[in-house]
Amino acid sequence: MTIASNTKLVSENDLKTFCVAVLKKVDVPENDAREIIDNLVEADLRDVESHGIVRLPIYAERLAARATNPRPNIKIVRETATTAVVDGDNGMGQIVGARAMQIAIDKAKANDACVFVSVRNSNHYGAAAFYAEMACPHDMIGFSFTIGGINHMVPWGGAQARLGNNPFAVAFPAGKERPVVLDMACSVAARGKIIVAAKEGTPIPADWAVGPDGQPTTDAVEALKGFVQPIGGPKGYSLTLVIGLLSTMLSGANFGSEVTHMYDDLERPQNVGHLMGVLPVALFEDVDVFHRRMEKAVSEMRSAKRAPGVERIFLPGEREALNLINRRENGIPIGVGVLAELNELGARHGLHLAAMDSHEKTTA
Amino acid sequence: MTIASNTKLVSENDLKTFCVAVLKKVDVPENDAREIIDNLVEADLRDVESHGIVRLPIYAERLAARATNPRPNIKIVRETATTAVVDGDNGMGQIVGARAMQIAIDKAKANDACVFVSVRNSNHYGAAAFYAEMACPHDMIGFSFTIGGINHMVPWGGAQARLGNNPFAVAFPAGKERPVVLDMACSVAARGKIIVAAKEGTPIPADWAVGPDGQPTTDAVEALKGFVQPIGGPKGYSLTLVIGLLSTMLSGANFGSEVTHMYDDLERPQNVGHLMGVLPVALFEDVDVFHRRMEKAVSEMRSAKRAPGVERIFLPGEREALNLINRRENGIPIGVGVLAELNELGARHGLHLAAMDSHEKTTA
Repeated sequence: MTIASNTKLVSENDLKTFCVAVLKKVDVPENDAREIIDNLVEADLRDVESHGIVRLPIYAERLAARATNPRPNIKIVRETATTAVVDGDNGMGQIVGARAMQIAIDKAKANDACVFVSVRNSNHYGAAAFYAEMACPHDMIGFSFTIGGINHMVPWGGAQARLGNNPFAVAFPAGKERPVVLDMACSVAARGKIIVAAKEGTPIPADWAVGPDGQPTTDAVEALKGFVQPIGGPKGYSLTLVIGLLSTMLSGANFGSEVTHMYDDLERPQNVGHLMGVLPVALFEDVDVFHRRMEKAVSEMRSAKRAPGVERIFLPGEREALNLINRRENGIPIGVGVLAELNELGARHGLHLAAMDSHEKTTA
Repeated sequence: MTIASNTKLVSENDLKTFCVAVLKKVDVPENDAREIIDNLVEADLRDVESHGIVRLPIYAERLAARATNPRPNIKIVRETATTAVVDGDNGMGQIVGARAMQIAIDKAKANDACVFVSVRNSNHYGAAAFYAEMACPHDMIGFSFTIGGINHMVPWGGAQARLGNNPFAVAFPAGKERPVVLDMACSVAARGKIIVAAKEGTPIPADWAVGPDGQPTTDAVEALKGFVQPIGGPKGYSLTLVIGLLSTMLSGANFGSEVTHMYDDLERPQNVGHLMGVLPVALFEDVDVFHRRMEKAVSEMRSAKRAPGVERIFLPGEREALNLINRRENGIPIGVGVLAELNELGARHGLHLAAMDSHEKTTA
């Protein structure tokens, strides 16, 4: 494994122990803390660092300020046999999101039906893929939509942020293959990647964002004051709008001007919305046939003739799954800026996160 | 209305009369022909010409060759209270698609549930928005996914077409506002636009496609031999893969290497798949509240501060809806190349499509 010189390796176990301890210090019950951190660290294991423990400081700050509720009473407020509306009681998005997806899976099993569950009064839930993929072991296709915790995209043609960079995920069970998992937001690059670049002081590509003046910038700090750019121009605008509407209009969650700033506003709950959905394969197709066809589809993508210089064609989610295996074995590279910030947070609670000795020797 | 010099205006009525007559000549029953042509001409009215009557010649050719069945017996082959699998009997996609969406709407009403209907043995269904928007008058959010009729995208990193440029649509009722309708495929530009450019002999932007050698090209004819480029690189690849899987794996429709070429293979049925879905708003939220919130969301997008030089911010589907009003009143501009091709087709059946006199005078 090649490690960038501005990172240090941390073991999965050390990282989880540290992060769980931090959340317990801000009044999160231990079981919930473990569930949240398993979710966050899974993102780091997969090298989706923008949704991993880089977010722990703001989560802890919001929890400490009670802008997020560490001990929510999550309730179903409206339901039918095949739908539910969940009120997350301003709990952590990782907890509320997982409960909502579990409700969808349970109802789908109990009623042999496609089920959708909308959510309000939740918070930033991390990686959308985590929830969609929960459906796969049950031979269901999973959907997960959410609205971003900051408005930093413009309606196409606009110069005022009215939209989040809203992400969604779709996950397919694939028989003997790993699940095929799309997880994307609508910008050319995740804002979390710009946050990481700003923390590390590295420049960003010119097509990731415009500054507050509407001009492209390679300065990550300047980009955080402006707007991220959508993929495909008006297509990306339309897509992020639709994901935002799906995530909020079916539950009473905040949208548009109602959306507060996850980092700058520690007074008000964010009332984040999600939409979770499952389509049980067996309602449409013999599960064995589905598995075989998915395996064939995966194989056909992987075996396509490659462009010059390309070593391997990946399926959506595959690179992340391979990263997880590697990093679980060898440790997780954490940027030195992020590590310093985590230890600054830890120091307030008498906690310290140590890098792995072997790597410290390597880079000494 | 500004008319490009290489187009002529045709009235909606003349266009529909001509096209219905063509379909009847290739054995489509009159009612079906009217339904198909209403759908196709609606795309032209909306200025989504890539899904409009530019497709009539290939549709007619496939019908004449019986590669598409002009008189299908469309059947539900598997169903529950809230799902169905529809076999389109190789009928026209416009007919099969509309039946499938109607089944979804009817089941949703009868059972107060979210409903998904998968489809096999269909054909190219035109504009995805048409079906998704059928849900809106019933206060349902509509989804429509399909797989493209030609493989002309590569898995990311690949140099071999294994994917269609698969489109999908999501439509929201919006109270007093027009429905908000996302309809997009995953390429930077629709292949239909390249077909139009090739017919008209005009160049295309360099980021629309690569030639068979993998190099960007502005030559539309060369581009049709190569691959269209996805939006957002690997994001667009992942998205088109997922839309393709949703459209085919739940019904037994063709995917990947099974997909035949809509234009080049007139021997085999295409076994195109779709997936239609509806989420009835009332299962999640008071319909009045939903309408008011959608109206507010639309208003906030429209009223955002505009970038320099931008006259108006549009909602997804709004520009198309305004085009429809304008063109219904003033006529539909048809490229002279397309018009010539339609009249060549018509001549074989003793039919002629005349441009509007007023426009012929204008450009004389």
